[in-house]
Amino acid sequence: MSEIIAQPLTVEAFAPYGDVLEAVGEPDKTINAGFCGRWHDKATLDFGPDGRAGISVFQAEPRTLPYTLDLVERHPDGSQAFIPMSRDSWLVTVADDDGGKPVNIKAFIVRAGQAINFHRGTWHGVLTPLSAPGLFAVVDRIGDTVNLEEFRLDPPIAVSV
Amino acid sequence: MSEIIAQPLTVEAFAPYGDVLEAVGEPDKTINAGFCGRWHDKATLDFGPDGRAGISVFQAEPRTLPYTLDLVERHPDGSQAFIPMSRDSWLVTVADDDGGKPVNIKAFIVRAGQAINFHRGTWHGVLTPLSAPGLFAVVDRIGDTVNLEEFRLDPPIAVSV
Repeated sequence: MSEIIAQPLTVEAFAPYGDVLEAVGEPDKTINAGFCGRWHDKATLDFGPDGRAGISVFQAEPRTLPYTLDLVERHPDGSQAFIPMSRDSWLVTVADDDGGKPVNIKAFIVRAGQAINFHRGTWHGVLTPLSAPGLFAVVDRIGDTVNLEEFRLDPPIAVSV
Repeated sequence: MSEIIAQPLTVEAFAPYGDVLEAVGEPDKTINAGFCGRWHDKATLDFGPDGRAGISVFQAEPRTLPYTLDLVERHPDGSQAFIPMSRDSWLVTVADDDGGKPVNIKAFIVRAGQAINFHRGTWHGVLTPLSAPGLFAVVDRIGDTVNLEEFRLDPPIAVSV
């Protein structure tokens, strides 16, 4: 089984796949009489012509490292944001697309205080917390289409940190 | 100064003002080969005909109790969701509307694992964490209008737990 090492999540490294949502640097706006910074509109949301935004709650079982990545998926009709509701590191896996096939798998460690938004159609692994509670708010497309393609990786890939 | 006591946040008590987003009871769907529960589409998002959804990040200074509530606001053009990115309790204040004036102020303590979505046009106090980091993802309306009405409470109200 081939192995990849998860890298720290940065805006630059993640740019081909999506957005990093975090309170880093100066806020775009200071509100509430100076008590609150707003980093404004940081996600490229795209739910297509027939979809709309929704907020769902995901609770996922923690996984252990090395993580065996044997399946990636993509949502052709919409972006998908994972917002952790705890201050824990978790794992994100992504891939490039080559004619409908995921290639060049990469893994990132998301640190406390970061959320991510996958751009529409980006290959990614399922939600992968590394510790309890594995609780996330998810902003994704609500609509009538299946909006899911899966691709089984054979052989699987071991992801370490 | 009059005083109100914050109550535990429940779906039923908060229903006139918005939605409680939490992983309670059976999930609507189990995904990812049984590893993840999805509580599906739990927020009434409404950004009007000319707005769209956006995800911003707020970092707010923690407040102390009793909290002096002297200002409430509402967003006439859109709903607004506050999703905590830590497992801390925080304070939500809301009011009914009486001809453009906020009345019948209520306060709720939001526990770890809960997020909320204010319905469009609901009077509410500003984001009020009670401890650091005060970090939240906010799903609200992106658009060209001001989308903000403020109302100063005179005299203010003391909020305790």
